[in-house]
Amino acid sequence: MSAPGTTKEPVLYLALVHAPVRNRRGEEIAAAVTNLDLHDLARLACTYDLPACYVVTPLEDQQDLVHRLIRHWLHGIGSQLHPDRERALRRLRVRPTLEDVVSDVERECGRTPLLWATSAHRSGTGGGAPRGPLILETTRRPGVMVLGTGWGLAEKVWRLCHGTLRPVEGRADYNHLSVRCAAAILVDRFFRERTTPTL
Amino acid sequence: MSAPGTTKEPVLYLALVHAPVRNRRGEEIAAAVTNLDLHDLARLACTYDLPACYVVTPLEDQQDLVHRLIRHWLHGIGSQLHPDRERALRRLRVRPTLEDVVSDVERECGRTPLLWATSAHRSGTGGGAPRGPLILETTRRPGVMVLGTGWGLAEKVWRLCHGTLRPVEGRADYNHLSVRCAAAILVDRFFRERTTPTL
Repeated sequence: MSAPGTTKEPVLYLALVHAPVRNRRGEEIAAAVTNLDLHDLARLACTYDLPACYVVTPLEDQQDLVHRLIRHWLHGIGSQLHPDRERALRRLRVRPTLEDVVSDVERECGRTPLLWATSAHRSGTGGGAPRGPLILETTRRPGVMVLGTGWGLAEKVWRLCHGTLRPVEGRADYNHLSVRCAAAILVDRFFRERTTPTL
Repeated sequence: MSAPGTTKEPVLYLALVHAPVRNRRGEEIAAAVTNLDLHDLARLACTYDLPACYVVTPLEDQQDLVHRLIRHWLHGIGSQLHPDRERALRRLRVRPTLEDVVSDVERECGRTPLLWATSAHRSGTGGGAPRGPLILETTRRPGVMVLGTGWGLAEKVWRLCHGTLRPVEGRADYNHLSVRCAAAILVDRFFRERTTPTL
């Protein structure tokens, strides 16, 4: 991994938001952290050279849980059995709010990040393909792809974001991917769409 | 979903192979089924209109486990709480071997399927982008994307396949995605690369 901001390559971070998100009735909640989300997104971050994946939760017991998981893989028996996993989990960072993520990236890169919200549904105002890497290269700002758990990001999180990414629309009217699979497709498209026309 | 083989649209199936696969020492094993793999791949199949995702395991207790999971979501409380999940899990089919998958697809589509192996690493003989949908449209044969759990497909499975899909190579030397994330990216690329040049 290059130190963020030292090259012209676009720098993208992930943020997996657990609160505030919506439940199936549209109410604002704090969702529980899912162990496998963290593994999958850390491995995704490592594969696409994203400097970090932020786990956003204000709940202290959930923060403790994530710290315990990271310790196991970084310093416990996990690191000996699975050095590849250690390399990936090193990219996880726990923060209480998305505002804290913004401050953190700002401190690391020296520039305010651009935030892209993601959703399974097209938003009223956005939904176009933003050609993210080009925007990051031109503005020399880092980017953050903001993913929601539960039934998606709460209104308050949307308001913090500068744009939205085009939802993953497959070949059917069904659109209920896991956040793990959706994140993988969105990150892959983000970088591949730099040189190919969007559909 | 259209009935497979009734339209000119390319028909792709998934097969998640649990045996024979390799362990970290390269030995042939039967891997355990992971609940979340089945959910994620069923949802992926539903989103991209793949008629089925085959769960391949010869172990009867593992087959029972998958059947129990499917029953819960199709007929149990799961279907009432989560109708979207029921729609997806309906696409799971359990078979003891990959040969059984081939027979099944043959019976359903009236044509022998083309099998593509997947791997995190480029194989000696393959690894090119196969422009899969074009091949399926031209030959009017169904396709099966064959995914391995554990440390990847055993030699015997490779020999049953007609080609390989280009591995997901991100932006770094790290290449250890979960099978859930890798499958999502590979299915997305499979259909998107029909009209765009491959990288």
